Amino acid sequence: MAHDYSSINVFFYPETVALIGASGKPGAFSHEMLRNLVTRFKGKVYAVNPKYKEILGVPSYPSILDIPDPVDLAVIAVRAQRVPQALEEAGKKGVRGAIIVAGGFAEAGEEGERLQEAVVSIAKRYGVRIVGPNCIGVYNAVNGLDTFFLPPEKMRRPPKGYIAVVSQSGAYLTTMMDWLSSEGVGIVKAINIGNKADVDEAEIIGYYASQEFVRAIMVYMEGVSPGRGRALVEAVRRARDNGKKVVVLKGGKTSYGARAAKSHTAALAGDYAVFSSILREAGAVVAETPTEFVDIAKALSFMGHLEPRGRRVLVVTNAGGPGVLATDELSRRGLVLPQTPQDAVEELSKLLPPIVALGNPVDLTGQASDEDYQLVLEKLAGRSEFDSLLVIAPVQPATMTIRVADIIADTVWRVKKPATVMTIGADYGELVKEYLDSRGIPAYPLPDRAAYSLWALIEASKPLCSIARPGNPPSGAVDLVEKALKEGRNKLLEHEALELLEHYGVPVAPYCLARTPAEAFACAEKIASNKLVAKIVSPDIIHKSDVGGVLLGVDPAKAREAYDTVIRRVRTQAPDARIVGVLFQAEAPKGVEVIVGSKRDEGFGPIVVYGMGGILVELLRDFSIGLAPTSRCRALEMIKETKSSRLLEGYRGSERKDIESLAEAITRISRIAAEIDSVREVDVNPIMVYEKGVLAVDARVIIA
Amino acid sequence: MAHDYSSINVFFYPETVALIGASGKPGAFSHEMLRNLVTRFKGKVYAVNPKYKEILGVPSYPSILDIPDPVDLAVIAVRAQRVPQALEEAGKKGVRGAIIVAGGFAEAGEEGERLQEAVVSIAKRYGVRIVGPNCIGVYNAVNGLDTFFLPPEKMRRPPKGYIAVVSQSGAYLTTMMDWLSSEGVGIVKAINIGNKADVDEAEIIGYYASQEFVRAIMVYMEGVSPGRGRALVEAVRRARDNGKKVVVLKGGKTSYGARAAKSHTAALAGDYAVFSSILREAGAVVAETPTEFVDIAKALSFMGHLEPRGRRVLVVTNAGGPGVLATDELSRRGLVLPQTPQDAVEELSKLLPPIVALGNPVDLTGQASDEDYQLVLEKLAGRSEFDSLLVIAPVQPATMTIRVADIIADTVWRVKKPATVMTIGADYGELVKEYLDSRGIPAYPLPDRAAYSLWALIEASKPLCSIARPGNPPSGAVDLVEKALKEGRNKLLEHEALELLEHYGVPVAPYCLARTPAEAFACAEKIASNKLVAKIVSPDIIHKSDVGGVLLGVDPAKAREAYDTVIRRVRTQAPDARIVGVLFQAEAPKGVEVIVGSKRDEGFGPIVVYGMGGILVELLRDFSIGLAPTSRCRALEMIKETKSSRLLEGYRGSERKDIESLAEAITRISRIAAEIDSVREVDVNPIMVYEKGVLAVDARVIIA
Repeated sequence: MAHDYSSINVFFYPETVALIGASGKPGAFSHEMLRNLVTRFKGKVYAVNPKYKEILGVPSYPSILDIPDPVDLAVIAVRAQRVPQALEEAGKKGVRGAIIVAGGFAEAGEEGERLQEAVVSIAKRYGVRIVGPNCIGVYNAVNGLDTFFLPPEKMRRPPKGYIAVVSQSGAYLTTMMDWLSSEGVGIVKAINIGNKADVDEAEIIGYYASQEFVRAIMVYMEGVSPGRGRALVEAVRRARDNGKKVVVLKGGKTSYGARAAKSHTAALAGDYAVFSSILREAGAVVAETPTEFVDIAKALSFMGHLEPRGRRVLVVTNAGGPGVLATDELSRRGLVLPQTPQDAVEELSKLLPPIVALGNPVDLTGQASDEDYQLVLEKLAGRSEFDSLLVIAPVQPATMTIRVADIIADTVWRVKKPATVMTIGADYGELVKEYLDSRGIPAYPLPDRAAYSLWALIEASKPLCSIARPGNPPSGAVDLVEKALKEGRNKLLEHEALELLEHYGVPVAPYCLARTPAEAFACAEKIASNKLVAKIVSPDIIHKSDVGGVLLGVDPAKAREAYDTVIRRVRTQAPDARIVGVLFQAEAPKGVEVIVGSKRDEGFGPIVVYGMGGILVELLRDFSIGLAPTSRCRALEMIKETKSSRLLEGYRGSERKDIESLAEAITRISRIAAEIDSVREVDVNPIMVYEKGVLAVDARVIIA
Repeated sequence: MAHDYSSINVFFYPETVALIGASGKPGAFSHEMLRNLVTRFKGKVYAVNPKYKEILGVPSYPSILDIPDPVDLAVIAVRAQRVPQALEEAGKKGVRGAIIVAGGFAEAGEEGERLQEAVVSIAKRYGVRIVGPNCIGVYNAVNGLDTFFLPPEKMRRPPKGYIAVVSQSGAYLTTMMDWLSSEGVGIVKAINIGNKADVDEAEIIGYYASQEFVRAIMVYMEGVSPGRGRALVEAVRRARDNGKKVVVLKGGKTSYGARAAKSHTAALAGDYAVFSSILREAGAVVAETPTEFVDIAKALSFMGHLEPRGRRVLVVTNAGGPGVLATDELSRRGLVLPQTPQDAVEELSKLLPPIVALGNPVDLTGQASDEDYQLVLEKLAGRSEFDSLLVIAPVQPATMTIRVADIIADTVWRVKKPATVMTIGADYGELVKEYLDSRGIPAYPLPDRAAYSLWALIEASKPLCSIARPGNPPSGAVDLVEKALKEGRNKLLEHEALELLEHYGVPVAPYCLARTPAEAFACAEKIASNKLVAKIVSPDIIHKSDVGGVLLGVDPAKAREAYDTVIRRVRTQAPDARIVGVLFQAEAPKGVEVIVGSKRDEGFGPIVVYGMGGILVELLRDFSIGLAPTSRCRALEMIKETKSSRLLEGYRGSERKDIESLAEAITRISRIAAEIDSVREVDVNPIMVYEKGVLAVDARVIIA
């Protein structure tokens, strides 16, 4: 399955770059682009523009074909209509990569879409990889490659660091570069992929995953291209496996946002619940806001290589309010603050003034000195009861000096646990922050930012379930679906749907199809339940109850009469419907009703959705989403992710339900759509969950 | 009801201040405090310390009683044990206010609590108002009063501005002062009230509400003191009525946070859902994080005096990604982005390049110039289709200059609509931000921050329901409760609870108490329903079903037998229980089941809780909370605030339910606990809501 990401390398490490459409006019974007290349890039640069012989000291040629040297990378900075010709020539020249800057392609309506298709087919013909169109290209701090057309006085370049960025939006990338700079956070590489006609996030992440000087990967995207979701998941997982931490921010989470994204980078925004669930499953940290995004990237790039062992945090503070606020944020995100161990409390209470609160947070109060921090960190930071540290150390009080920064940094690197710091205090505070940052301890001026950044360090290292792969479908299952397709149906009949579940080993409430009154009798005997349900089976009837097609509480001794009643009613109320027969099913005992569905997402392919039954859960959006097929490990996680799952855990004195069998049923149902291509949607509603075992009662299967 | 807030004035505008416990040692906090007073305060300052004749040029006396002038305000900076004596002397001297700095009072355990009580009683005896203990006092930019003991090089003082702050935490106040300064946001007054033994948030807010140079009030609190919630609500409402905007941040939202708060300022954190609901009802904006808190305060202090007319936002951007991200944030918070009106689209499309997207956001693309902004803002900002503006204007592109700041500011003050700006772009960006800020347009470097700050401007001006006042309870209702109390019960019997509802005009499913078999028959006749429920009535039985005390589906013709059955079963299974009789009740037709409860919150007094019935809603926490009594307007809001209320609005083809009658029932139930002091809790579960009307089925009333 391993993808070869080597063709991406040319965008970051070309030896020779040609800028097609370089302008000689200062201020023009392609002139500024050339200036940035000339100023910083360590390779060779050529300009292509018939109007000039030379620009900014760089020789300019009428066509890329006229350049005497071989060219690795073409930066195409002409307007949309002229791109095909420029690319054609670049292809002939033998470039391996082209960055297409102009907008006016797929994001700009039908004509633009056609132009983009033409460009892609030229690129394919010559084996040229494309970044863009509608992008500003590449930034590489290692060799100074910088195709951004913003001068330094309008966009700061961050210091060198351990973050690599991929952004669908150019403007958001440049604002991020500025913000990272003003926060003093370093980056090593950045790329803007715009309309991603060829190269997309998945390939870039996969490439970054193999780059030595990358610790954190920032991904800003507005949508997953159709069919590219699995590649994205794989790339994120590859990064995680290589010890890199990935943080993702999505634009277009809401319907208004999606509308904006569509006109911006032609992105189909998709469903945010699907996106964020699957990216988390892949192993990324999902940031909710631009503020979080950069703060988290900073923490991951500083400390992502320390793998925390758990969710237990020690908080030490000299400032009560910020301590409370940081604790609220940690707690909101599911971290825990164990009490300080009793032996340590006893020891410390002898050494510290009585006003100090030795719980967790340890509140040293405004009278704390550097030495108090030293004492507490020495005794507690290394304790096995704590997995990570949040140190709140404003240096405002007269008793505090900047030496506290040394104490914190020494402790953290001694105990090697993830840690973040909140500090402030005029110029003193800034010195402390910068010093801590320089020693690789992420420091922030506000308590919530320090707290959620610590959470991200833990989130980014959480154990992941393995990603299941589809197997071969049971042959009976395939036959069933193909038969229905041959008959021109887009839906399985009810008994077929239940049979499909059985082929996949999902326990189903006993059922039997009767095509004659005599069969009805036999069905009742076979099912052997003391109460039955009878339902009409017809490819033409959707709402069975509306035409009298359902009978509840049927006495098995009267199955034959029930058959007649159902058939008679339906014949009267839906005279044209084709009737296959009557489905008899045992009335399942009352259990906790849950729903498991599987469908195909345009970006990610087959996914599975789990939730409680009933209309309220839908309104309250309490469901969980996973890739299909789903591993048992992930199915158990999915159950736990819903709030309503507490009903299964023995809520209010009721017995615990069989969560393991439910997880098993989820994995089996998830395989149906993942293994049979023509299954579009499976909806098992409800599944009854009992103290022992589960039973699927009703299923709907859409095929195509 | 109007409270007199004038006694607070002495803390901000004393003519003479005595610092009791002033130290002569540089670095000591009471020395730094004196230095700040001497350096900036425009009034007279005296030191009190027998060890010195003079400190920093200020005369020092052995006791406050020795000071030759009258003293308005005593700042008591001695340690806890010495505070009572110092306060006693200050009282004798005739001060009107005292700030008590030391910790070691109620936040530090029982002994501290007793010390705090002693201090309060001394203050009462002399009519002295107290701020603290456990606080750093007061900051007033108007007259330079500054009792904070942090030197300027360790805590920046913000510029003068229109924000007034009240904070329970001293350390959080000082970090905020620093952060406000580094963000360039001005304040006019600040106070830290610590343990709030006397003066609390309510009084400070009420006082700020009358201060001319206040536009926004920032409130940081960790808990509402018992019984002070109503005063807080009233003060916030008073501020709103005076055109001031209030933003509140609560510390101790979570259980870990609450634990931290308790050890910090002795705050009982209470339930955050109650706190945030009631503060919103009062008219405050509730910030969720410290980052939001300051950003929102900035917007409110710049633009809080512009009252937006609605929730419709126009977004203009030259940067696609930031436009998408800002839109997501606006949308998440319930704002709407109407499409640009068609006539304006037609007009603008003639004037702007085709690449510009004229929807909403208007995306001018990275090629936009200042003139493009001018054009679009001129045509669209004043349109009645938009109530507010979010302008995203990074000045990174070569085509943009700092002139865009003038264009934005001129437009905004011409159309007088709330607006925020996102801008960035190295030093250019900072100039634009500072210029916009200086013209009163709140600018931010990140799109989410600009978006939620705009939301806050709209939220802070949203129309408020009037706050209902308790009336006189129906006399029958009071008699009922008093009779039960006299009989030593802490709970009404079931028929009494239903009767109580009837006294308050809540429709109840018909019921009747039978004390004899003959009465059972009469009850059935009286109720005249074709299906009844029979329930044992006994003060000793809590779980009626467990002892066979409930019969469902009773045929009215067999009421007598039902009576006998219930009595017999209970006599067997609970032989010692006192039996009052059997309650017969009509089986209510199936409707949407909701719950309305009323209880007493320690801080806010009577409150009402509304939600759907059933165990899931409890797990998913989908309920709403209001002050009791509840106005009809607020009851309608509360219904709308729950997600599950869509079930009442005609979800999935079902008919709309009688929301008006439900609101009426909520207001009536809310009056019970609010009007009868001895009612602690009312729980009406369920109320059936029908297409026409509602019926309360079951009620539980706790009394004391």
